[in-house]
Amino acid sequence: MQYPVRVEKPNPVFARALQQAIGGIEGEMRVCLQYLFQAWNSRGPVKYRDMLMNTGTEEIGHIEMLATAVAMNLEGASVSVQEEAANHPIMNAAMGGVSARAEIGSQLARHVLSSGQGAMATDSDGVPFNGSWVVGSGNIAADMYANVMAESTGRLLATRLWEMTDDPGMKDMLSFLIARDTMHQNQWLAVLEELGQDHLPIPNSFPQEQENQDFNYAFFATGMEPQKAPDGRWAKGKSIDGKGQFSFVPQMTPVGEKSTLGPPNPKGHAQVEQMMAYEDATDTSEDD
Amino acid sequence: MQYPVRVEKPNPVFARALQQAIGGIEGEMRVCLQYLFQAWNSRGPVKYRDMLMNTGTEEIGHIEMLATAVAMNLEGASVSVQEEAANHPIMNAAMGGVSARAEIGSQLARHVLSSGQGAMATDSDGVPFNGSWVVGSGNIAADMYANVMAESTGRLLATRLWEMTDDPGMKDMLSFLIARDTMHQNQWLAVLEELGQDHLPIPNSFPQEQENQDFNYAFFATGMEPQKAPDGRWAKGKSIDGKGQFSFVPQMTPVGEKSTLGPPNPKGHAQVEQMMAYEDATDTSEDD
Amino acid sequence: MQYPVRVEKPNPVFARALQQAIGGIEGEMRVCLQYLFQAWNSRGPVKYRDMLMNTGTEEIGHIEMLATAVAMNLEGASVSVQEEAANHPIMNAAMGGVSARAEIGSQLARHVLSSGQGAMATDSDGVPFNGSWVVGSGNIAADMYANVMAESTGRLLATRLWEMTDDPGMKDMLSFLIARDTMHQNQWLAVLEELGQDHLPIPNSFPQEQENQDFNYAFFATGMEPQKAPDGRWAKGKSIDGKGQFSFVPQMTPVGEKSTLGPPNPKGHAQVEQMMAYEDATDTSEDD
Amino acid sequence: MQYPVRVEKPNPVFARALQQAIGGIEGEMRVCLQYLFQAWNSRGPVKYRDMLMNTGTEEIGHIEMLATAVAMNLEGASVSVQEEAANHPIMNAAMGGVSARAEIGSQLARHVLSSGQGAMATDSDGVPFNGSWVVGSGNIAADMYANVMAESTGRLLATRLWEMTDDPGMKDMLSFLIARDTMHQNQWLAVLEELGQDHLPIPNSFPQEQENQDFNYAFFATGMEPQKAPDGRWAKGKSIDGKGQFSFVPQMTPVGEKSTLGPPNPKGHAQVEQMMAYEDATDTSEDD
Amino acid sequence: MQYPVRVEKPNPVFARALQQAIGGIEGEMRVCLQYLFQAWNSRGPVKYRDMLMNTGTEEIGHIEMLATAVAMNLEGASVSVQEEAANHPIMNAAMGGVSARAEIGSQLARHVLSSGQGAMATDSDGVPFNGSWVVGSGNIAADMYANVMAESTGRLLATRLWEMTDDPGMKDMLSFLIARDTMHQNQWLAVLEELGQDHLPIPNSFPQEQENQDFNYAFFATGMEPQKAPDGRWAKGKSIDGKGQFSFVPQMTPVGEKSTLGPPNPKGHAQVEQMMAYEDATDTSEDD
Amino acid sequence: MQYPVRVEKPNPVFARALQQAIGGIEGEMRVCLQYLFQAWNSRGPVKYRDMLMNTGTEEIGHIEMLATAVAMNLEGASVSVQEEAANHPIMNAAMGGVSARAEIGSQLARHVLSSGQGAMATDSDGVPFNGSWVVGSGNIAADMYANVMAESTGRLLATRLWEMTDDPGMKDMLSFLIARDTMHQNQWLAVLEELGQDHLPIPNSFPQEQENQDFNYAFFATGMEPQKAPDGRWAKGKSIDGKGQFSFVPQMTPVGEKSTLGPPNPKGHAQVEQMMAYEDATDTSEDD
Repeated sequence: MQYPVRVEKPNPVFARALQQAIGGIEGEMRVCLQYLFQAWNSRGPVKYRDMLMNTGTEEIGHIEMLATAVAMNLEGASVSVQEEAANHPIMNAAMGGVSARAEIGSQLARHVLSSGQGAMATDSDGVPFNGSWVVGSGNIAADMYANVMAESTGRLLATRLWEMTDDPGMKDMLSFLIARDTMHQNQWLAVLEELGQDHLPIPNSFPQEQENQDFNYAFFATGMEPQKAPDGRWAKGKSIDGKGQFSFVPQMTPVGEKSTLGPPNPKGHAQVEQMMAYEDATDTSEDD
Repeated sequence: MQYPVRVEKPNPVFARALQQAIGGIEGEMRVCLQYLFQAWNSRGPVKYRDMLMNTGTEEIGHIEMLATAVAMNLEGASVSVQEEAANHPIMNAAMGGVSARAEIGSQLARHVLSSGQGAMATDSDGVPFNGSWVVGSGNIAADMYANVMAESTGRLLATRLWEMTDDPGMKDMLSFLIARDTMHQNQWLAVLEELGQDHLPIPNSFPQEQENQDFNYAFFATGMEPQKAPDGRWAKGKSIDGKGQFSFVPQMTPVGEKSTLGPPNPKGHAQVEQMMAYEDATDTSEDD
Repeated sequence: MQYPVRVEKPNPVFARALQQAIGGIEGEMRVCLQYLFQAWNSRGPVKYRDMLMNTGTEEIGHIEMLATAVAMNLEGASVSVQEEAANHPIMNAAMGGVSARAEIGSQLARHVLSSGQGAMATDSDGVPFNGSWVVGSGNIAADMYANVMAESTGRLLATRLWEMTDDPGMKDMLSFLIARDTMHQNQWLAVLEELGQDHLPIPNSFPQEQENQDFNYAFFATGMEPQKAPDGRWAKGKSIDGKGQFSFVPQMTPVGEKSTLGPPNPKGHAQVEQMMAYEDATDTSEDD
Repeated sequence: MQYPVRVEKPNPVFARALQQAIGGIEGEMRVCLQYLFQAWNSRGPVKYRDMLMNTGTEEIGHIEMLATAVAMNLEGASVSVQEEAANHPIMNAAMGGVSARAEIGSQLARHVLSSGQGAMATDSDGVPFNGSWVVGSGNIAADMYANVMAESTGRLLATRLWEMTDDPGMKDMLSFLIARDTMHQNQWLAVLEELGQDHLPIPNSFPQEQENQDFNYAFFATGMEPQKAPDGRWAKGKSIDGKGQFSFVPQMTPVGEKSTLGPPNPKGHAQVEQMMAYEDATDTSEDD
Repeated sequence: MQYPVRVEKPNPVFARALQQAIGGIEGEMRVCLQYLFQAWNSRGPVKYRDMLMNTGTEEIGHIEMLATAVAMNLEGASVSVQEEAANHPIMNAAMGGVSARAEIGSQLARHVLSSGQGAMATDSDGVPFNGSWVVGSGNIAADMYANVMAESTGRLLATRLWEMTDDPGMKDMLSFLIARDTMHQNQWLAVLEELGQDHLPIPNSFPQEQENQDFNYAFFATGMEPQKAPDGRWAKGKSIDGKGQFSFVPQMTPVGEKSTLGPPNPKGHAQVEQMMAYEDATDTSEDD
Repeated sequence: MQYPVRVEKPNPVFARALQQAIGGIEGEMRVCLQYLFQAWNSRGPVKYRDMLMNTGTEEIGHIEMLATAVAMNLEGASVSVQEEAANHPIMNAAMGGVSARAEIGSQLARHVLSSGQGAMATDSDGVPFNGSWVVGSGNIAADMYANVMAESTGRLLATRLWEMTDDPGMKDMLSFLIARDTMHQNQWLAVLEELGQDHLPIPNSFPQEQENQDFNYAFFATGMEPQKAPDGRWAKGKSIDGKGQFSFVPQMTPVGEKSTLGPPNPKGHAQVEQMMAYEDATDTSEDD
């Protein structure tokens, strides 16, 4: 085990919450697989591949820690423990001030029925892990932002779990995971720093003169009424990529026409009224 | 229509590819809903809420443009058009040098069978849009990185679609969408700049002294052999968040013990051999 | 905001229930996207396209209202409020007569962990919104029935939510949404009335003489014993589409033979026993 | 087998298309399970339960027919057959005029790799059947509209498949399925007729005076400019449910204020800037 | 109804748990559809097809029983019943010793909101049934193991549900389902016995001399340190299929090199730094 | 790399097929995660935990090999290669005899658009990996059957991929993976042998006298007509678990009555006609 996992006061409700850190979109299965797939698909500087492989491998150990913590929290807790939990202020705050007792025992049927008091590859609602979350785009800068994002929401989740428990073992385990997320946020940002200022806009290999030059640094307000310029960095001054000037459009005006699609394919069996609409439209003596 | 959508040479295969920009994880449905949910849940500076609402609303128009482009590309194309497409170099390169003709007509059954030659809420493989992709964490900095990531993979996708077509109308539409993605990348990064240097590590409201201080800025190598220090920004020097010094651990040493879970709950009906293992283990004359 | 959203007594459990009206199959994300996709793909009378676009846009405002209501209900509720809720008769009835207290605080981990007390793109079990629910068939009559169905289950859901709360603000918001669902049911049915009697069977552009004329208006009983004719409109008299006469078949008799598939493809690696079965079968001296 | 399934000219591409009628949202698995679940959950007039059970059972036979058809179409087809298919006009039209040859063989890997040339519980893109499609609301009228909708899109799908093939065996099988869908559309509509005029709005057991009386029969235009009244049944005259008068609102005016959510829960770890915004806002000497 | 379904003391929480046996991966919808699809796709000895069809049909009746049990448990329970449930020891054990009262009423919103107190096509967390679980591989032996596995986890689930209730009607219904699972485990194993010793390794029609002969009966230890030989049947002696000798590799040594992928396709828009890495690499005066 | 991955003739179509072995239900992500979760949740003999951990770790290397093979096959193939592929007999057989050329280039858009010519966490149809496939039941025997099943369908898949390619590098890689699947089938069966004859029926810790003794070893025929006894091991003789005698029931007779559910909850808003049905039924002067 990468780091000690101890549970002094098993809490089945906390077990369920920990599942979010295993199989949720902010969880460790996602980052583990994301870094490994990015490594395996890596084309470009070799050192990034090695870094991704190292960190992807590290994350397997995090899943193990969390799965073990889930299993331990599902083991027989005593009533007195739960009583104590009921008086815990954070649980009270989060849940609207009411006794945490109501929490206990809920949502746990699945862990009893399907996994025999073990962890599952799901989030805290029992929704299965989904492979679509594994981002590996083939562009190193886009991937790094995907990784910063994953570690930002991941660290946020870990701090919220830290607040939810007062078990010293669990707090200690989470203080380790939070620390690693700090490192990983910094790590992916370090790659972006190394790639240099010119990594933006992503991808930086597209000839930027081919993008529409009228709208590439303009902030559009889209309300029913014109808006006044926001007091924000994104509406004036040099753009963050250093390649343009922010401007502000108080009310976006559509410049495209309404589309006119052709008639339905007769073999696609729209209603006859739909097809007649086109015949009417092309009939000079009528309109619709 | 926010911007003109014209298709000179309808190409059903390109219609299918465009679906990725509608219902794929990098697509417009995701950013549209992500910005709107972030706005609706916004707690904190009001100006960010307004910005998110403006841009979320703008994205609805992008879905409309793409949906219209899909429908137009699915309308009756002539043979001669397809012949031309067959000689297009990017299609050839992407597909391994073989004639693009083979491409034409494939994967389109679903658009004929289910949508009557219209767009669907799916990606380019027909996999439905999934609400789990809509990230709104309640932390503005985490959300901004989620947005930069979405616009980075989104612009990457749009440039790849731009390479796949030589229809002037489609290239023009994509040059607009690529430009907007440039703006949106810059826009979310502008918020991060405005939040200032101290937005890291995310969340910045967690008391950082509570995280494990031994491991929060160390890069772990995890191979079977010790590694030498990488020549990368992430293994030495001041950390990006300015709050630590990067260090390097050539081979991670697990500091936790193997876990020992308790015996299975008898009512959970593990095999009897599993339960006997524990009886054996607690038998004073043996250990495992 | 389209209509006022007020919450006098925040109730986190009700927040979770409201999620069904956002990201559930009967929810507002579905109707919003369904009407917009139908509009964008619209081929046929233009006025239907405009109607769909208007109502699709209206539904965005409904999601906003509900998302705001979720966030407000997740904000800090006081104990006294919950006590009151505990005595509410509908909650009691629905939950089997037991105190509603048990409800409070359950199932809420996800909203604390992932969304920072905000709404998510999921249903009330945390299952993500799914793009497969967005129906746009290319046939206006089929689409209208899909819309009537969506508004029927949607209004049903809203009335059940209305029964679940006694917060005056929530009841007021729901009375608005219920009213809009009344209108929308009527609206889609009005299109069907306008399309006229002959819109059935859908699609009405298929040459009906091509369908099997022996079975197109017969009600089949499928039990192990013959049944007597049901006392229902569907087993006698003129059919609803006016194009046939209902009849009744007391016990359906299969008219097809058992199918006989060919031998497995040798390269598909069935078991050898499966392949031998065919050799045996074609061997004149044996039978199986 | 309920009805003969014959394939004269096996066509693997058509096999894949047929999968939509098995495991797609418009397919037979959905209607089969939907009618059975509605029957099993039925509370109310017994005769509807019996009807649902009969038809749900019938649909099992339809899945069998289609699964058999898929397997037969996946069996070894000869080249000459495919040549013929290549000249089939509907395939050409649907696919943009190009030779159908390109179609052949594509998308079939999954049926070879996973099912050994058999049918699967997926749609024509290989996306698995999803239980969320099984609608049983507990309200008989809402369920009947769900059923009419399922049979409308189902018959539409079957007619499109009918157009896609010229195999006499497949056309015959489809002419049977199309006929049954005609009956089933009529059957569910017959229940609605029997329930009488007053089944609307659904649910009809909700006290309608409790819904907002200002907006329950008004059609809202939602554009940026006021619109003129549409020339449609839904904007004037008696409502379809006979309980109101349609009216028209040329431009919807929001009547709710912008929402103001409370500050983030400190333990939820928003960014500090988000929390400070509230402190600023309540500071009398400042505004944002 | 195949077997009596009686509920003496309706328990809504147990209703939710029963859903796992309907729409969970171990549930009856899966086995029902799995056996029917295997039958419909059956190529090879006809008697297996008939067996599969019989048992697939039987399972429909099991879903009916469970769906009815769910609906009955959702009907109005009285307070006194719940009090009794609260003192039930297994519920206490599973939930950590705390009063079962907390359980009651939780997680039930969905059944009230969406199904009108009826069963749904979901598992006990509300996650929809998924068609990917329906395994029919085209190889009879692989399918039989899939079936044994389904009945093993299915019987396990049923025994856990049996422990969760003390309603005599529910215990009786489950004793029937448990018995049928006993039969079905035996039944699929009987087919494997009948197929004979040589059914392994699956598929047995692949020429085994084509598989790598160095690694087909070796157990690999994969730790960072060499391991000592396990005291297990799988590391020494004749292999179970009788076609090899088990051996033990104390520490697996990779025999493949690191892969070297080619440069990114320029039209795929990796970052320019990724492409330059390859130019550097081929430049004779440098290395990375 | 665990074993060499070489591709002599890159074939993008084969890349897509290989995806089934990565992210399909029979693929390596499933077995990898399944064995690791079973290990992490392991309660009972420690040696099984170690075995699972070793093999789970080994499977990570298999995913790496396959991901690399996908990336290599997606790299620029030349026309001449494809011409050769076109004449490959297995491809012809599988696809119905038509030139493989049609195959080439199809279905690849996603790999170009989303992953920059790299592997993804999906199956060969682009459907994402799903965590519900990861089975860890808490019962070692049930888990072992789940593992045998996974390796049986996995080896079947690998042999089918072996038939699909004639690239010597790919055939070599697959001969390694096929060999490992042979070992793993034997390995899990060795555990079952070690657990002994009495591991059946699973779970063997449930008191079997509690299951219904009339139906636990009877094979039910379920047709509309009585059937004659099948000539199969499962209908006569001693049961495989040695605990009963198989018997045969020629036609299953339902022993339960039709269920009668109570009236709908008035607050659940069924239609009024549904509620009236119950009033009618209890009205002494009428019947329905």
